[in-house]
Amino acid sequence: MTPERTEKLLNVLRRRQPDLSLIADQVNKPRNLSALVRNCDAVGIHSIHTVVPKEGYRTYRGTAKGSDYYVKSRAHESVENAISVVRQQGMKVVAAHFSDKAIDYREFDFTQPCALLMGAEKQGVSDVAAQMSDAHVVIPMMGMVSSLNVSTAAGIILVEAQHQRLKAGMYDQVRLSDQEISRTLFEWGNR
Amino acid sequence: MTPERTEKLLNVLRRRQPDLSLIADQVNKPRNLSALVRNCDAVGIHSIHTVVPKEGYRTYRGTAKGSDYYVKSRAHESVENAISVVRQQGMKVVAAHFSDKAIDYREFDFTQPCALLMGAEKQGVSDVAAQMSDAHVVIPMMGMVSSLNVSTAAGIILVEAQHQRLKAGMYDQVRLSDQEISRTLFEWGNR
Ligand SMILES: C[S@@+](CC[C@H](N)C(=O)[O-])C[C@H]1O[C@@H](n2cnc3c(N)ncnc32)[C@H](O)[C@@H]1O
Ligand SMILES: C[S@@+](CC[C@H](N)C(=O)[O-])C[C@H]1O[C@@H](n2cnc3c(N)ncnc32)[C@H](O)[C@@H]1O
Repeated sequence: MTPERTEKLLNVLRRRQPDLSLIADQVNKPRNLSALVRNCDAVGIHSIHTVVPKEGYRTYRGTAKGSDYYVKSRAHESVENAISVVRQQGMKVVAAHFSDKAIDYREFDFTQPCALLMGAEKQGVSDVAAQMSDAHVVIPMMGMVSSLNVSTAAGIILVEAQHQRLKAGMYDQVRLSDQEISRTLFEWGNR
Repeated sequence: MTPERTEKLLNVLRRRQPDLSLIADQVNKPRNLSALVRNCDAVGIHSIHTVVPKEGYRTYRGTAKGSDYYVKSRAHESVENAISVVRQQGMKVVAAHFSDKAIDYREFDFTQPCALLMGAEKQGVSDVAAQMSDAHVVIPMMGMVSSLNVSTAAGIILVEAQHQRLKAGMYDQVRLSDQEISRTLFEWGNR
């Protein structure tokens, strides 16, 4: 690896936010999943969780511009399992979901450790996930359509999280452990 | 048309923002174009402009969830033409484009009449469009990838425009003329 490449990778790792994550609740189009991963990379998310759709994934056609490689992803059989793993890591679960208790996404405090849970293209957030979540957030809609594309919605909410964390100086501190930085640098470098 | 349907359509028309628009500068994947339209509908944009890619459009596979129908779209041969049309309507042109003069997208005043110009998947914003634009805005990027998907980027910026216009009470005023409301209601009703 050239020194320039090492420096570039290190700069990204020094901004990674281990206490910000995403759960994809049976999102089933690979194109949407890879767009989600691209958004996660862009805001400095280090690892995400996917819940495998009951009917499996559709055939992959798209591309995440290589960002798949830079965000760790763990697949779960059930959303209960995904939620309990992020909870064990000290994160709140905030679902992007229309409901009576939903608040505007800008009102949620994304500087706290949290995982954003996104629903499937057709079914939306599953009932059990909605119930288990600590909060529900929505992006106000002014037009005829009742929802946004799942990766667009995630992008909007994650950039708000990024904005709050930028203001709080959280990208200026190194948030990953030295050990995790070395390990990931080794992995990425041997791509 | 049932009274409920009329009421629903009228409620959307009463929130439409005739002085907020979008120019797609040779965006060539129909799936991205239709996701752009869906985002425009969602924030109350009434009409948009597309610049036809030199090499034509790729075959259409996706869906805009019917939102295509609710946003007027005008195709142009050149971006100069698209820009001069929105200028004649009194709008500023703000390009989503990385450059020396680019500012954070949250710093732009989207309550003024303006059209957001989005670049193509590979080429980005064309040189001539970048030069003709009144301002450039960017969404800060913290990861390995250097850009977001075009419709995700548009969604993020348009929701900021919506937020500013909500705060300014611009969705509480009827912004379309009575004539335009009647005409569009007739069109939509006869779908
Ligand atoms: C296409 S939407 C699912 C629509 C589904 N028919 C429903 O009623 O939930 C896919 C996912 O994107 C997210 N989403 C889309 N639009 C949203 C909005 N305006 N606010 C919050 N989340 C949204 C939610 O997580 C949703 O489950
Ligand atoms: C996939 S990007 C194009 C990337 C292209 N290689 C370039 O260098 O411009 C497509 C369009 O999305 C918009 N876009 C993507 N990421 C953006 C960001 N972080 N800030 C502002 N606009 C962005 C721009 O309009 C861009 O032209």
